[in-house]
Amino acid sequence: MPSNPVYLGVIGVGGVGNAFLHQLAKLPAPPSLILLARSSQTLLSPAPAYSPAIPAADWQTASATPSLTKSGALTPAEIVSYLSSAPGRSVLVDNTSDPALASAYPQFLKAGISIVTPNKKGFSSDLSLWKDIFTSAATGNALIYHESTVGAGLPVISTLRDLVATGDEVTRIEGVFSGTLSFLFNTFAPVSGASSAKWSDVVSQAKDLGYTEPDPRDDLNGMDVARKLTILARIAGLEVQSPNSFPIESLIPAELASLPSTAEGVKEFMARLPDFDGQIAAVKEQAEKEGKVVRYVGSIDVAAKQVTVGLQKFNKDSAIAGLKGSDNIISFYTKRYGGNPLIIQGGGAGGEVTAMGVLSDLIKVLERL
Amino acid sequence: MPSNPVYLGVIGVGGVGNAFLHQLAKLPAPPSLILLARSSQTLLSPAPAYSPAIPAADWQTASATPSLTKSGALTPAEIVSYLSSAPGRSVLVDNTSDPALASAYPQFLKAGISIVTPNKKGFSSDLSLWKDIFTSAATGNALIYHESTVGAGLPVISTLRDLVATGDEVTRIEGVFSGTLSFLFNTFAPVSGASSAKWSDVVSQAKDLGYTEPDPRDDLNGMDVARKLTILARIAGLEVQSPNSFPIESLIPAELASLPSTAEGVKEFMARLPDFDGQIAAVKEQAEKEGKVVRYVGSIDVAAKQVTVGLQKFNKDSAIAGLKGSDNIISFYTKRYGGNPLIIQGGGAGGEVTAMGVLSDLIKVLERL
Repeated sequence: MPSNPVYLGVIGVGGVGNAFLHQLAKLPAPPSLILLARSSQTLLSPAPAYSPAIPAADWQTASATPSLTKSGALTPAEIVSYLSSAPGRSVLVDNTSDPALASAYPQFLKAGISIVTPNKKGFSSDLSLWKDIFTSAATGNALIYHESTVGAGLPVISTLRDLVATGDEVTRIEGVFSGTLSFLFNTFAPVSGASSAKWSDVVSQAKDLGYTEPDPRDDLNGMDVARKLTILARIAGLEVQSPNSFPIESLIPAELASLPSTAEGVKEFMARLPDFDGQIAAVKEQAEKEGKVVRYVGSIDVAAKQVTVGLQKFNKDSAIAGLKGSDNIISFYTKRYGGNPLIIQGGGAGGEVTAMGVLSDLIKVLERL
Repeated sequence: MPSNPVYLGVIGVGGVGNAFLHQLAKLPAPPSLILLARSSQTLLSPAPAYSPAIPAADWQTASATPSLTKSGALTPAEIVSYLSSAPGRSVLVDNTSDPALASAYPQFLKAGISIVTPNKKGFSSDLSLWKDIFTSAATGNALIYHESTVGAGLPVISTLRDLVATGDEVTRIEGVFSGTLSFLFNTFAPVSGASSAKWSDVVSQAKDLGYTEPDPRDDLNGMDVARKLTILARIAGLEVQSPNSFPIESLIPAELASLPSTAEGVKEFMARLPDFDGQIAAVKEQAEKEGKVVRYVGSIDVAAKQVTVGLQKFNKDSAIAGLKGSDNIISFYTKRYGGNPLIIQGGGAGGEVTAMGVLSDLIKVLERL
């Protein structure tokens, strides 16, 4: 298809944002990058020409040239206004995890601005926002793609949407959805059973390796997994009100839940975590006695309309038990696939693969605009 | 996106074709089916109105009504002429495995007719046809999707294309690509090691279950796997001249290779196969001694530009060894995914899931036209 010029606004230059910009710059015919925003600064191609474009990989150097406009943080309304005045269709790439920006998606979409994002917030908060997003996209004749909200670059969302769109009946979705929790349990309770590592040591190691959020409780509370499950359940047809409307097993000991999320609080959390090693060791040992291993999984029973997030025991020869490193695995049980599920497995976190999912979505949007 | 009316020609009403038509009929807003052809008969919506459309699920009943035109087999040129005169964009769905029709794809594409198909022939024959197809699609501003040529409805082609399009470096692709050979080896050499089944009995059982082609040699010769590998290798950037330009390990004993492909020949093949049970049992036992199992796999080493198809030994705890039933598994090793590959696994054969892959492609084409 011959593509008309498309204009791109990108928000966020963290790990994912940076990797995205570098991948974008290598496309054979990238769209014009006309807005690049980070927390307090915005770089713009000067209106009304919307030219020159911002060089995606060299924006830091280019921002020093007078040919680009610099500004402080813009409001969503200001960004909508700027992008919708561009001389062609435009796309917003939200590489943040900002809930405020996500709640403004309907404004963008109604104005005909398509959205591509790994930001889970828009799709896993109140059901009303989810509905507003998809209704607004239809109203504004805009597209919205969010592959990287689940499993990073793994083809999870697209596969589920294809199953649903072609009329298959998805009965159950099950898997390991957090790279961090995958690593923690693959290390703490390996299939070989040879590990005698303490839980708190494994958490500490993961933190040192940068596998956890700066505050490991943001992984251990299960909310990240709950948000991903909320998204998949909604695509599968369940009207999940919010990620708080189903049980989430938190791995944060109750006694430590109220520690503040300051650096001091994190320090105290890590210092006191060893006191609770016995609790989770008991869970591991119980599983061992049954010839199983324990894993932190999410599952959706579509018929029963049930979503659960927490620890479960798995046979050692199961695909979930055999997972390596910080891999994700997602199994789709459907009517057409019968007893053996369709399985997607691989790295589900990290800047490069997350950015790849975003870029892959962007390419699909460009093909359709 | 608002979609303009799109007109559909479908060829083939076998297992996949039939499942496709039933799935198509259930789409909320299916495109107009204006041509439906099987070997010697063609059903058409009368020109110049191209109306009424053929009811996809009830075409057999509808074919008895005078409102539709009946004809004998049309040539590709006649179908091109009919479809390209329709009052809108048109799509050809080729649900056959016909090499002659596949070699006519360039004519369709140059005329602006998009193509969706599970037919491997166009993409796995001479490299010149492959190139002609994609050049013609660009010339005619038409689209070509063929997800179901590898792994049926599993997202194999789309995932590989996404990896390549976003600039990842695919280093190796490996997997079990034949549902039939998957079943044969999962049964003959299970991980548990408990099977004492003879190879010829397993082949015979698979034939009785309808898991093999009518002539099991069409599975055992490895050509189906070689064609799939040819397609993936080309997408990954290798200029594979044809599926005969790399070594294929045939499981047909040399002594039986020249038996005719008549019913008599098949009968004699099955009768004499037990004479060769010792050969493959020896391979299985050698693997057992190394604590491994034997599987029939295909692999592509992109850097070394090597494609191989044949038996290999795998550790019992590997994903390939643990495959169930007639599942396929495809592992993509890439620069971004590092040591742990991106894996797609599940049923890779059968009318329903193959048709789903075709319909899912058609939906994407409709979104883009």
